[in-house]
Amino acid sequence: MAVYKVVNIALTVSYDGTGYAGFQLQENAVTVQEKLEKALFRIYKENIRVAGAGRTDSGVHARGQVVNFKAVPLIPVDKIPLAINSCLPRDISVLNARQVPDSFHSRLHAVKKTYSYNIHTGTFPDVFRRLYTWHCRFPLDVPSMQAGCRFLPGEHDFRAFQAAGSTVTDTVRTIYRAEIMEDLHARAICFLIEGSGFLYKMVRLIAGTLVTIGKGLVPPEALEEVLKGKFIRPGPALPARGLCLERVEYQEEKRQEARTKNEQST
Amino acid sequence: MAVYKVVNIALTVSYDGTGYAGFQLQENAVTVQEKLEKALFRIYKENIRVAGAGRTDSGVHARGQVVNFKAVPLIPVDKIPLAINSCLPRDISVLNARQVPDSFHSRLHAVKKTYSYNIHTGTFPDVFRRLYTWHCRFPLDVPSMQAGCRFLPGEHDFRAFQAAGSTVTDTVRTIYRAEIMEDLHARAICFLIEGSGFLYKMVRLIAGTLVTIGKGLVPPEALEEVLKGKFIRPGPALPARGLCLERVEYQEEKRQEARTKNEQST
Repeated sequence: MAVYKVVNIALTVSYDGTGYAGFQLQENAVTVQEKLEKALFRIYKENIRVAGAGRTDSGVHARGQVVNFKAVPLIPVDKIPLAINSCLPRDISVLNARQVPDSFHSRLHAVKKTYSYNIHTGTFPDVFRRLYTWHCRFPLDVPSMQAGCRFLPGEHDFRAFQAAGSTVTDTVRTIYRAEIMEDLHARAICFLIEGSGFLYKMVRLIAGTLVTIGKGLVPPEALEEVLKGKFIRPGPALPARGLCLERVEYQEEKRQEARTKNEQST
Repeated sequence: MAVYKVVNIALTVSYDGTGYAGFQLQENAVTVQEKLEKALFRIYKENIRVAGAGRTDSGVHARGQVVNFKAVPLIPVDKIPLAINSCLPRDISVLNARQVPDSFHSRLHAVKKTYSYNIHTGTFPDVFRRLYTWHCRFPLDVPSMQAGCRFLPGEHDFRAFQAAGSTVTDTVRTIYRAEIMEDLHARAICFLIEGSGFLYKMVRLIAGTLVTIGKGLVPPEALEEVLKGKFIRPGPALPARGLCLERVEYQEEKRQEARTKNEQST
């Protein structure tokens, strides 16, 4: 029997977080990582550990979580998604698999993450979006929320925007982009934020602050005040079901993007 | 204490049918009608029967089901949706309430119903649409499906498009509109059908026939052949989760529409 060298595989994974106690493995709760590892065991017949780029919280969704694992090349890479999906519950789906360098680590090497926070502002909750949006029955002033967003890009100390009792000491993060988009027809408001990384509950606390601004309770500048450490209370943190990890990016991808652009422009 | 005259109230109701054994009351299964009647009991403190316009099947959804019930006018009509919604589970939502003439019956007086059948054609199932679409992993030829649709409008005997063993004898129905729409970006195909009424499983059998056409297994004319009673097998019936009762219309609404148009044109 041939001895195969172990390869490092990165997967893009989408999941409906409603039924899970978050991504990361836990003793007494069902998690996405557990389901992925069980599926890999059925395929590779060995215990395989997966590393996830974002430790999404209980009830948080993902469209583009990235995980990686090492295994013998039993199946061609392009057949891996179909194989794993056939062993996964219907609320988790592998969208893509690719071989990556041995040193690649989905969390340690991520350079940019994008989250969306999704709000529905109809008079009554929409039963078809109830699991994936937070319903706000109050009218929100979108231009004010957009004005608040303008204080986010750049490097800031986000100490005020983390869950109480957090022990993280390095609370400086860089935000590359922060936007509020509105779909009037669907009565949907989407807050999109791209950054180098996020503290525990940071996106939900910022989204909550933007909603407080949208309700007219504080001016857009309140967001800057919180960032500057003035004694203004941020948030409140909005419910997990509106939050979705949209995308994780890596240095190599950026380099490839730049290369493609250069090639196109020459 | 004043004695109030009983009033007839019509509600527009939306529900996620995933967790229900259909709309209509059943002995040993949870239904939407049961949840609505329980909510009404909590508000009016008496047993109130609701009549639904469409007896949607197990797992079928609704955006615009219409029901009516008679009760003493305990609450102002415009406050009824909020009151009922506060007593309903999150997968059922009353969108609108209006007082209707005493003689109004949501099912008997409906003149037009619109259903949608929703298909997702991405490579892998979309976890966020898994409960509300049927995933077809084969590419579908949309122009062929549209060509098949053209045989549907008009009055036809839909005997071939009903569930096996059905005992309905009058199988003639009028279709006012039948359309296939495609959203390339979302990889979504939507079959919309408006008619005077529908036989048991009729929409799912027609949608299944259109998918068979879309796969190129039979030509668009096959739909006409089935309608004409030629011995071509329709369907198969597609799963309930893709089906949604979009709208129910009444004579009075049509008259009002016509009146509004006349007023606008004068």
